[in-house]
Amino acid sequence: MPTNSPLTQITLTGLPGIPHVQPGDDLARLVVAGLEAASLRLEPGDVLVITSKLVSKSEGRYVDLGTVIPSPRAVDVGKRTNKDPRLVELILRESTSISQIGGEVLIVRHRLGFTLANAGIDHSNVGREGDQWVLLLPEDPDASARRIREALRALTGVGPGIVISDSHGRPFRIGTLGAAIGLAGFPAVWDQRGSRDLYGQVLRVTVTGLGDELAAAAGLILGQGAEGLPVVLVRGLKLPPGEGTAADLVRPVELDLYHHEQN
Amino acid sequence: MPTNSPLTQITLTGLPGIPHVQPGDDLARLVVAGLEAASLRLEPGDVLVITSKLVSKSEGRYVDLGTVIPSPRAVDVGKRTNKDPRLVELILRESTSISQIGGEVLIVRHRLGFTLANAGIDHSNVGREGDQWVLLLPEDPDASARRIREALRALTGVGPGIVISDSHGRPFRIGTLGAAIGLAGFPAVWDQRGSRDLYGQVLRVTVTGLGDELAAAAGLILGQGAEGLPVVLVRGLKLPPGEGTAADLVRPVELDLYHHEQN
Repeated sequence: MPTNSPLTQITLTGLPGIPHVQPGDDLARLVVAGLEAASLRLEPGDVLVITSKLVSKSEGRYVDLGTVIPSPRAVDVGKRTNKDPRLVELILRESTSISQIGGEVLIVRHRLGFTLANAGIDHSNVGREGDQWVLLLPEDPDASARRIREALRALTGVGPGIVISDSHGRPFRIGTLGAAIGLAGFPAVWDQRGSRDLYGQVLRVTVTGLGDELAAAAGLILGQGAEGLPVVLVRGLKLPPGEGTAADLVRPVELDLYHHEQN
Repeated sequence: MPTNSPLTQITLTGLPGIPHVQPGDDLARLVVAGLEAASLRLEPGDVLVITSKLVSKSEGRYVDLGTVIPSPRAVDVGKRTNKDPRLVELILRESTSISQIGGEVLIVRHRLGFTLANAGIDHSNVGREGDQWVLLLPEDPDASARRIREALRALTGVGPGIVISDSHGRPFRIGTLGAAIGLAGFPAVWDQRGSRDLYGQVLRVTVTGLGDELAAAAGLILGQGAEGLPVVLVRGLKLPPGEGTAADLVRPVELDLYHHEQN
């Protein structure tokens, strides 16, 4: 029984040929080159999911640990977690509080509101010689997302939705999952409360983390490429109207039953 | 500069025409009919993400609240959370402990290990007359996934990967996200530790929640269909070898810094 209505279908495509990015590189131009390499053009409704690492590199968010002088508190936390105190110093500078320490795991509340390990500071795949360099998250990933969106609109005539994704561990669950830490062009949270379900009943809990769904979905492509596919084009989604930011996905502390702070 | 290597591309397709499911219905046959309606056939490497609600309905996991006698504890928790004590009784029966109570929110550790609101018991879109009926999660979703996989193999010659997905709220983040509560045919957790990154450095933290990535990605399709697209075909993924279960995604209590129990 063939159906007459079109299929609901979404395609995730890893853009090929995005090279190693240097500070100051224009990500929008690299994305356009990647689209051309895939024989694709941006269309209205497209969303691009870009790894935070790529954005951080283009924004030059490197720090040489050799230049960091750890505070006494960083030295103390470093001892407790078996981490380089200079790295801990950077983690604490990027955070508003420590959420939990367990063994060598240091989970903080990032200054942008995200609760995550090591303030998202990356020690692997930084692409610089030696073990001294680390990479911070983008300074303001929502602003980065807006900037990339507008640059792509200027280059191609289409301003796509943008998600800047980071890989986060989670309470209760094993394994990391992509999360949206920057977003532009559509609502990060999709509130369908009040809409009717199949039986005409009002849906009760239907506030969906759309930005995180996209970041997690793009993780399927990232996993295929050993970090060689840092930009994923998502096509086919009917996006809800409106504009949002990744900050909308941060649960306020007073509404978070699992918020925790310690010294 | 067109590329010569094939694109890394994954397609999510909502199977059309999956009807309202009744207890005892054969999900594998309904999936095959949905594939035919989409002019698709299963191929090796395919994964099907199926909502837990569809599986629960086919397994007849309905309970008539009118038959439930609440314990004194359920009455107490019902008063504190402004919930029907009979519903609370079912939630407690499905759980090993209460994790957190906050306002009207009741978060428990489900007997299967998942930490989630209301033990996943569904009050909306149950598809039965009146407000008395609720729907429990499948009895053993990993077993359900294996059964559906083998039934599809028998019908089509191809045993696809299966994810049974449920929509979960999360600490720290606003909005629900799909999570894998049943899984068969591939590893739920993808351990890439020891593999090399682009620069030849050993990747440090690369244990990915593959089952949850798939459940979250399928949520993009579910969100398009107001619950009318409960089966999503995921095609194009190179799955890692091995077999897993959704239980592999449950963080053991002793390794969970956010585990919490209360009375």
